[in-house]
Amino acid sequence: MTAKTQIRRARCFMVELVPETPRTDAIQAFVKQQTIFVEIETADGATGLGYSYTIGTGGHAVMALLTHDLLPVLEGLDAAEIETVWQRLFWHTHATAVGAITSLALAAVDLALWDLRCKNARLPLWQMAGGARRAVPVYDTEGGWLHLSADELIAGALRAKAAGWSGVKIKIGKPDPHEDRARLGALREAVGPAFNIMLDANQSLTAADAIRRARLLEAFDPYWLEEPLPAEDIEGHVQLARATSIPVAIGESIYAVSHFREYLQRGGAGIVQPDVARIGGITPWLKTAHLAEAFNVKVAPHFLMEIHVSLSAAVPNAIYVEHIPQLRALTHSGLAIVNGMAQAPMTPGLGIDWDFEVLRERRVAI
Amino acid sequence: MTAKTQIRRARCFMVELVPETPRTDAIQAFVKQQTIFVEIETADGATGLGYSYTIGTGGHAVMALLTHDLLPVLEGLDAAEIETVWQRLFWHTHATAVGAITSLALAAVDLALWDLRCKNARLPLWQMAGGARRAVPVYDTEGGWLHLSADELIAGALRAKAAGWSGVKIKIGKPDPHEDRARLGALREAVGPAFNIMLDANQSLTAADAIRRARLLEAFDPYWLEEPLPAEDIEGHVQLARATSIPVAIGESIYAVSHFREYLQRGGAGIVQPDVARIGGITPWLKTAHLAEAFNVKVAPHFLMEIHVSLSAAVPNAIYVEHIPQLRALTHSGLAIVNGMAQAPMTPGLGIDWDFEVLRERRVAI
Repeated sequence: MTAKTQIRRARCFMVELVPETPRTDAIQAFVKQQTIFVEIETADGATGLGYSYTIGTGGHAVMALLTHDLLPVLEGLDAAEIETVWQRLFWHTHATAVGAITSLALAAVDLALWDLRCKNARLPLWQMAGGARRAVPVYDTEGGWLHLSADELIAGALRAKAAGWSGVKIKIGKPDPHEDRARLGALREAVGPAFNIMLDANQSLTAADAIRRARLLEAFDPYWLEEPLPAEDIEGHVQLARATSIPVAIGESIYAVSHFREYLQRGGAGIVQPDVARIGGITPWLKTAHLAEAFNVKVAPHFLMEIHVSLSAAVPNAIYVEHIPQLRALTHSGLAIVNGMAQAPMTPGLGIDWDFEVLRERRVAI
Repeated sequence: MTAKTQIRRARCFMVELVPETPRTDAIQAFVKQQTIFVEIETADGATGLGYSYTIGTGGHAVMALLTHDLLPVLEGLDAAEIETVWQRLFWHTHATAVGAITSLALAAVDLALWDLRCKNARLPLWQMAGGARRAVPVYDTEGGWLHLSADELIAGALRAKAAGWSGVKIKIGKPDPHEDRARLGALREAVGPAFNIMLDANQSLTAADAIRRARLLEAFDPYWLEEPLPAEDIEGHVQLARATSIPVAIGESIYAVSHFREYLQRGGAGIVQPDVARIGGITPWLKTAHLAEAFNVKVAPHFLMEIHVSLSAAVPNAIYVEHIPQLRALTHSGLAIVNGMAQAPMTPGLGIDWDFEVLRERRVAI
């Protein structure tokens, strides 16, 4: 054991943010972002800060799991041996895995360890984790919520296009499929053919309904159809993928690398969208991206652009980062975007410019 | 809305128990049982008591999810409309589902609602939930832990057999498959052919290893091979099921009915073992049992015999209840077993004879 990287102390805290604009999709409203932080300090005094999140429920449960079950296990372990630490924590709480709360808690620890690893090596995350390229395309989601009118969707997409971005995502899943079709049709007409439009149904459909809607929407050449069905319905995704030319994208509701493998092996996913918090951290996120590469499938991570830009820049098969500036209120500077390309931060560590004063002020009492 | 069944108040508390005997399997030790209780009171003053559990980690997270996210939603809902309440809670926390912590919390609420429903109707659970028969066979697990010697396994099985029981379960997953084989062989020789021996690998194997071990063990005619592989590896279970004559049993690590459907549809499960806590309550447990019936597959629920006896007696396709008296320290009287058949309680409600004084005394400070 290298004494200086031995874990001396670990603690967690939570910050709650209300989104600046309302966000709705076919199944839920995004009412509150709970950001859960883990800070790990090693024997040499170095610290790593990791984070995780929920969209409104479960944050206190993540904190409880960290406080009572995960953080007490960390003391004395070697922060440099992340795979060992990850496995130790995973098996320690294995009877509650696969599970969102467990994965989200583990992710906050894993990100703190990667922050330490990168800072100790004086490398930015995108290089430390692979180093495939410096910049990754972004697409906009903030202009595509389900409650917005077609005119609002169009205005948002035209703004993105004018800024040099190559795509936007809109939510679908209106009770009447023809309403989805009319909104997409109007948007396609407004932006022209050379612009990517992603569709997101947020697990709201059945396979039969999704196949019918996909047929109605295919004429407008959408770039992908995201989460058409509940994430457990692998067979339904396989049926849909066989029935439509629109690439099927899944992954934000998947909590295990082997669950991605099931999808990939059976042809149920044309694009995968792992979420570094929900999959349990950078360690399993990279395994997922590499698994997808072996299947010749591209990666477009879900949410969390501040960290996903570096991870997408680390691997060869990432195609897009989703633009939702969720940490704006907690950071000094945001993601740099040049001509629709998000620039991976060069700062050693996770590359997130935390405003520690705000973090201190906005901590929620647990 | 029927005013008298409107939910007026809901609260939760937790009791921790250390198992009376050490329990180990191929992947974990069962160090502590955390029993999480939910009490729901309706406008007419009636109360229902539900419970859930963990085997050592995550209990505080379940309590936090109940306290902060689930219980506040209950007030004012109609306790008689359990499906509506269940769906409301599920979608409220959907972004953290599928997940063990979320399901365990939801189960405690669902069981409290079923307790109320049964008491209001003055019916025992096994009749309220279906009513297939009064008694269900039990098999013993307590004599089969992985750390026990072959002699201890044999002594336990002979005790069960002498008591009129028809089967026992032993853990497998020793580093050397021939050690598993020798233990099973010695046990089979001791108990004779007309006695069921269940095997449990606790998700510790790969498909290749499981196929090889199954071939080594087949000669001793095991009744089932439980959790051979990680629960996410559906394809591996399908391969194993095709390669062995031993029925493959899975389910204790599955948290969604549709996940069971994937297994059943693909032929990856010969027997399903839903756990009423981990699947999210009686409501989804019954859906799982009925789904299995449609696939002509039998049910042998995991753990929690005090409630599973009633559920197994409710449905036509249950074959066995697992005997681990996990609530002995918290109840006045245990499960009645006559000639190896567990008798479903006739008391209106869940039929568990809680010792409320002990529950009060042993509550953990949260």
